[in-house]
Amino acid sequence: MAIANGNTPESNVDVLIVGAGPAGLMMAEWMAKCGINARIVDKRGTKIFNGQADGLQCRTLEIFDSFDFGHRAWIESNHMLEISLWNPDSQGVIHRSDRIPDTIPGISRFQQVVLHQGRIERFFLDSIASCSDIKVERGVMPTGLEIDESKAEDNDAYPIKVTLRHPSEEEATPKQSSTSTNGSSIQDGLFRSNLAPDDTQDLIAAAALADAANTTEIIHAKYMLGADGAHSWVRNQLGFKLEGDSTDYIWGVLDIVPITDFPDIRMRCAIHSASSGSVMVIPRENKLVRLYIQLTTADKTNGGARVDRSKVTPDIILQSAQRIMAPYTITYPYNLGWKVANVVKGISDRSILKTYQSERRKIAQDLIQFDHKFSRLFSGRPAKDIMDEEGISMDTFKDAFQKGNLFASGIAVEYSSSVLVVKPSAYSGVGAVSQKLAPGIEVGKRMPSVKVLNQSDARPSHFQELLKSNGSWRVVIFPGNVKNAIQKQRLGSLGERLASSDSFLKRFTPPGARYDSVIELLTVHAAPRQEATVFDFPDVFRPFNDVEGWDYWKIFVDDESYHEGHGELYRTFGIDPQEGCSVIIRPDQYVSYVGKMDAYEDMEDFFSGFMVSQISSKGAAGSERADTDVSVAVI
Amino acid sequence: MAIANGNTPESNVDVLIVGAGPAGLMMAEWMAKCGINARIVDKRGTKIFNGQADGLQCRTLEIFDSFDFGHRAWIESNHMLEISLWNPDSQGVIHRSDRIPDTIPGISRFQQVVLHQGRIERFFLDSIASCSDIKVERGVMPTGLEIDESKAEDNDAYPIKVTLRHPSEEEATPKQSSTSTNGSSIQDGLFRSNLAPDDTQDLIAAAALADAANTTEIIHAKYMLGADGAHSWVRNQLGFKLEGDSTDYIWGVLDIVPITDFPDIRMRCAIHSASSGSVMVIPRENKLVRLYIQLTTADKTNGGARVDRSKVTPDIILQSAQRIMAPYTITYPYNLGWKVANVVKGISDRSILKTYQSERRKIAQDLIQFDHKFSRLFSGRPAKDIMDEEGISMDTFKDAFQKGNLFASGIAVEYSSSVLVVKPSAYSGVGAVSQKLAPGIEVGKRMPSVKVLNQSDARPSHFQELLKSNGSWRVVIFPGNVKNAIQKQRLGSLGERLASSDSFLKRFTPPGARYDSVIELLTVHAAPRQEATVFDFPDVFRPFNDVEGWDYWKIFVDDESYHEGHGELYRTFGIDPQEGCSVIIRPDQYVSYVGKMDAYEDMEDFFSGFMVSQISSKGAAGSERADTDVSVAVI
Repeated sequence: MAIANGNTPESNVDVLIVGAGPAGLMMAEWMAKCGINARIVDKRGTKIFNGQADGLQCRTLEIFDSFDFGHRAWIESNHMLEISLWNPDSQGVIHRSDRIPDTIPGISRFQQVVLHQGRIERFFLDSIASCSDIKVERGVMPTGLEIDESKAEDNDAYPIKVTLRHPSEEEATPKQSSTSTNGSSIQDGLFRSNLAPDDTQDLIAAAALADAANTTEIIHAKYMLGADGAHSWVRNQLGFKLEGDSTDYIWGVLDIVPITDFPDIRMRCAIHSASSGSVMVIPRENKLVRLYIQLTTADKTNGGARVDRSKVTPDIILQSAQRIMAPYTITYPYNLGWKVANVVKGISDRSILKTYQSERRKIAQDLIQFDHKFSRLFSGRPAKDIMDEEGISMDTFKDAFQKGNLFASGIAVEYSSSVLVVKPSAYSGVGAVSQKLAPGIEVGKRMPSVKVLNQSDARPSHFQELLKSNGSWRVVIFPGNVKNAIQKQRLGSLGERLASSDSFLKRFTPPGARYDSVIELLTVHAAPRQEATVFDFPDVFRPFNDVEGWDYWKIFVDDESYHEGHGELYRTFGIDPQEGCSVIIRPDQYVSYVGKMDAYEDMEDFFSGFMVSQISSKGAAGSERADTDVSVAVI
Repeated sequence: MAIANGNTPESNVDVLIVGAGPAGLMMAEWMAKCGINARIVDKRGTKIFNGQADGLQCRTLEIFDSFDFGHRAWIESNHMLEISLWNPDSQGVIHRSDRIPDTIPGISRFQQVVLHQGRIERFFLDSIASCSDIKVERGVMPTGLEIDESKAEDNDAYPIKVTLRHPSEEEATPKQSSTSTNGSSIQDGLFRSNLAPDDTQDLIAAAALADAANTTEIIHAKYMLGADGAHSWVRNQLGFKLEGDSTDYIWGVLDIVPITDFPDIRMRCAIHSASSGSVMVIPRENKLVRLYIQLTTADKTNGGARVDRSKVTPDIILQSAQRIMAPYTITYPYNLGWKVANVVKGISDRSILKTYQSERRKIAQDLIQFDHKFSRLFSGRPAKDIMDEEGISMDTFKDAFQKGNLFASGIAVEYSSSVLVVKPSAYSGVGAVSQKLAPGIEVGKRMPSVKVLNQSDARPSHFQELLKSNGSWRVVIFPGNVKNAIQKQRLGSLGERLASSDSFLKRFTPPGARYDSVIELLTVHAAPRQEATVFDFPDVFRPFNDVEGWDYWKIFVDDESYHEGHGELYRTFGIDPQEGCSVIIRPDQYVSYVGKMDAYEDMEDFFSGFMVSQISSKGAAGSERADTDVSVAVI
């Protein structure tokens, strides 16, 4: 950087980008990927940490993927699969009148998703840093612009002269538009993922801005790209005006974690009421839902009155939504008071630690044996012909390779019977347990996976993706076709047992914790998705709390997806949709148990074999220690 | 942290993990996910930055995914799809004798991949930081262990007492086992992705270690987990011994970027020679290939001699591989001398900037119109019946929604004819150009995508994933079935033209840069994958250089994959495998041109319309400016 007269530093750059929002970062990304000498400045002191929800179209994700970070946006975002249209009937009551796939099937390998701006900026920043030395210079404001038109056609000249000022810290740190969700600010820790750990360095860097405050520098550029938004300084300097009408439609926007009996709340919905207006529902990440309400229009033919924007409060927006969505109810809690759950301890008996050795020892021995055998085969001389007895036959080698391949994949591991693995033979006394109800889900092996759909938002996931490693046990109920009266009744009875105050779900869960925090309950049914809603299932299968409403991520369906085929779970695993089954899965994804769908007692026996009752009066429920095999606690 | 007598700080922790390699980090990850109070210490001063190649089995990836970082390993790693078995024939010449899928189709949604340990540690560290306050304490060494057996059964006691010492900086910073590839050290910038930007903080933290050197602290723990490797301090303290035989098989391992005519070099191969031994080929990330050579065996029956390990040099390993793989050749260059390419500038004429406005203006106008229309429909009152003329018909609304949906997706964008988009009508004078050769690849729209396989390693990718945003233009040749003699001949002629010193590939590329760095050449053929190799294609389609050998990532095939179906590219896009076609794709993935497979002159004309010749004697090749439409340069 050369020092010019008057002590103002001057330097040259090929491209200067003004503004480091998504548009400016996209330009910087291109410069980085193409190896162009560029700088990017932004008057804000830090990046956006949470910010607006951004709908990302499938084409946007294709572009992100071409920059190598499509997968990050795809994984972190909420996926929107289906649009529901709700309209009033002749009585004025709203009904679902139609469904449209939210992204046209087949047009892209991505679908429409929603993710807030702070994450998108993060992906750009990481990607730019990985392939160039371009860094966003924050707290830097352009204050002067001169263009030497005579040099505009000279490829080697720098005709653009820009004066940059480092403003004071206060100027550079405008209040961030934090997502004021449910009336709670971002700092309460609820939306920790919005303040992702990879933003830490930006927070630290922001603190150092003050050092450069009120200094000035001059940049000579070949090109300048203005990406400084609606009130663009670049555009003003060049004398351009933003053309077009400013519309008088006023949209009220509210982000909430809703508590509602409206069944399509996890779909994108357009709801028209008979006379109370319309609302657009946009489901977001982190259980959030965004409501867009068109509060009024200045279109004279409709006679709409102008609205004082300052008077549009969250209450007014909510009340509008409530009128439009009646008779369904929707609300959200203020003044959240929940606390971070304390460390969960003492849930299981120490005896389960002993199963580690018994389970892994055999695997280790098999591995050593295989290694020896394979090494011998590999180093041996190939047989010349079938009479060559000292040479290694290539069939033998190929066979060893194929077996070794399956073995090494980790999929072939099968744990033996133990307090944690109920092989049918070991459990014959209790009855009910039967591998035959789901031949494809083998007790002792890891849970296999095909795709299922979320009942509430139609998103496909591999079933295994639901089994996050967080220490939870899982009871998975496959109730089959819940539109079949018998299956529905069996599910109802099971739900009652599970919901009772002394059920194993609750007995092994520490007081104060959510009843499914030790043993999670998942359901995959086989009725057609569009004929069911989560409200067809007993409450216990979709936990409710006052803060977050219903949990929409517990009930799934084996049905065809819009973009990713049909998992055919019931067919693949051999489960009869008119019979169903239940499965217990360990925290490491291994299958402990397969039994009748409503065999509550068998499941209770299983968990009582090694879990420690959390009910304070010891002895009220069984918590017998079991060192070798299943010992059934007496309830 | 309490201060005990003697000024040695003492504190309690539920779980202490010793060792922060993959095993220790896996344990820390579980503690973090389960909310357990834990600490993890490691005597090394920093994490591993590059380290060993790790084969990740499909089950390992399932587990990583359950921790939320499966996608990172999946994207960064090399995927191994097929195992090739090579054996000597009766003449002693090696031939491919068999092929096996490397992961059994259907057993997992992941397949076997290879990625080095430094990245795997990074994923664990990021994941642990995102959900807990557990941090790896580096440069910390356990020096004393006492266990109070009397407290072992007391859940509230801390029976394990460990003394930790912060060693001096030198002790804490053992030399990292850098991947010495091709005789070049890691610092030369070749394997920049091995020193990923997200490791920067660890390098900075390492510099601060010295402050705590030679201080001591005492930890009381409920559990201690030893994950400190083969020479485990924990195991020694407890008096356990590592049982089992230490084998006398000596494997020579060499990582190289190979230059070879061996056609299966990007597959995992087991190659047995008639009398020179065997080699295992493991293709890795970043163009690397690992060769495992079993140098000898101490198995007495084979009469193998013991080898002095210190004498196993890269040269000895390479020479063994060369003997085994003969008559194929394999080598790699020493003392790499290439330099980071200079910033590429001045490739295209400035006139192409004008197309931005013409292309985007219409899109913007359409968007504004759509917004107005949609807002009116959304805010309107639903029609009560078909006689209600003021109400909005729900059919109209649904129709607008569906159209808007396609429009907003970004997929429907279609650019008009310009210097960058050759619509058939605009180009009729030149002939040859015909949309009909590939009705599914529409000129002016973004390139559609289905899956194709890499010819060399059988890995499926969406075609669009090959079109990274790096500023390159692409000429994609679809030669159809290259086993058809006519097609093979046409491809040969095209290859000759493209390879000639005055071809458009070379004319528009700066001197010294790779000939496909401005215009990349990709090929997707339609012969059966297993019947072809990259050596069936003219050299120009698989660039060669002295340092990296052949480029295996340019030739693809439309065939069935092992795990992800069949993209059916030719059928989907309507390309006749007995005719083929060529396509030019812009750096932003939009299709510029579709024409005959071997219409070299048309492609040349297209690029000459806006590109600037890089040949120093100006005027030797055409570089006419074209402001409005295609102007054909005279060659």
